[in-house]
Amino acid sequence: MKIGTVTGVVWSTRKASCLMGQTFLVVQTMEGQIVAADQVGAGTGDKVLLVTGTVASRFCMEAPVDAAVVAILDQEEK
Amino acid sequence: MKIGTVTGVVWSTRKASCLMGQTFLVVQTMEGQIVAADQVGAGTGDKVLLVTGTVASRFCMEAPVDAAVVAILDQEEK
Amino acid sequence: MKIGTVTGVVWSTRKASCLMGQTFLVVQTMEGQIVAADQVGAGTGDKVLLVTGTVASRFCMEAPVDAAVVAILDQEEK
Amino acid sequence: MKIGTVTGVVWSTRKASCLMGQTFLVVQTMEGQIVAADQVGAGTGDKVLLVTGTVASRFCMEAPVDAAVVAILDQEEK
Amino acid sequence: MKIGTVTGVVWSTRKASCLMGQTFLVVQTMEGQIVAADQVGAGTGDKVLLVTGTVASRFCMEAPVDAAVVAILDQEEK
Repeated sequence: MKIGTVTGVVWSTRKASCLMGQTFLVVQTMEGQIVAADQVGAGTGDKVLLVTGTVASRFCMEAPVDAAVVAILDQEEK
Repeated sequence: MKIGTVTGVVWSTRKASCLMGQTFLVVQTMEGQIVAADQVGAGTGDKVLLVTGTVASRFCMEAPVDAAVVAILDQEEK
Repeated sequence: MKIGTVTGVVWSTRKASCLMGQTFLVVQTMEGQIVAADQVGAGTGDKVLLVTGTVASRFCMEAPVDAAVVAILDQEEK
Repeated sequence: MKIGTVTGVVWSTRKASCLMGQTFLVVQTMEGQIVAADQVGAGTGDKVLLVTGTVASRFCMEAPVDAAVVAILDQEEK
Repeated sequence: MKIGTVTGVVWSTRKASCLMGQTFLVVQTMEGQIVAADQVGAGTGDKVLLVTGTVASRFCMEAPVDAAVVAILDQEEK
């Protein structure tokens, strides 16, 4: 998983029908920008945990996405 | 998912039979160039949302592709 | 698989329900930071082996994760 | 998918039995060198379309490969 | 697939039970270091072919790995 910060939302009128009902967040990670389906009600400024790849779609929801925000972080102990 | 801009189309006469009937768009993202199957009727200059990996083929269509244009973006709020 | 060193733990109260009961370790690899589910009881400072991608969730546990710590290294012979 | 140019062939006598009968092409892409199973009879110098990841093995052939040459390009319109 | 050279072996006493019986080779590729399960009896110094991702585990063996050495190269024609 990756750690990132939500920076905005992506809007689309013309999209594949299988994507209807998904909210897509723009998330900035250390490696770059990722657009991810929201599973936890995250908003701009939230520090979040991202799951990427096939797993993003298979376990928590059945949608044609390759990235999902699966948690809002409380804190990171280092 | 990634955000990119459609820059052209790829043509091929000799291709695997399982690829027949697909339109392949050249899309420029921040990380580089990707060739993606079109699912929404996108054209050159459109800002689009790309799904990559196994998910690109499994949910919206049954084709041997690893990248698909699944939405044309209206705007991106930041 | 990748070799990395555990540098901390990630905490989250608001997360997808399918992630409950998982411990997420922050692991530093040569390519960057990865958050991975712990399968072996690793702690900060441990040198570990990471599995990434779909495989991380499919074989050893059924959880919506894309990275897992699957071994603590004894030594690396070179 | 990625666009690349075939630069050679890889030979191996000692290989996993599940790989028998595959031709492996060395393909140079903008991101680096990839070895890919040939599905279309491509040769050195051909500009080709590469599928990578699980999809490379699942749709067009049942072989343990993570990259496949699936088309020879006619031209690329930009 | 990637081409790499075996540089050593990784040892671990504490590992996920599903990894027992696997030999893990450290392989240096042009993109960096990968730890891969050995399927062909490769040793230090051998030039090998690596399969990465889900495919590494699904076709040739049923183990929780994301990279496998599947061939020892004879030569590479360019």
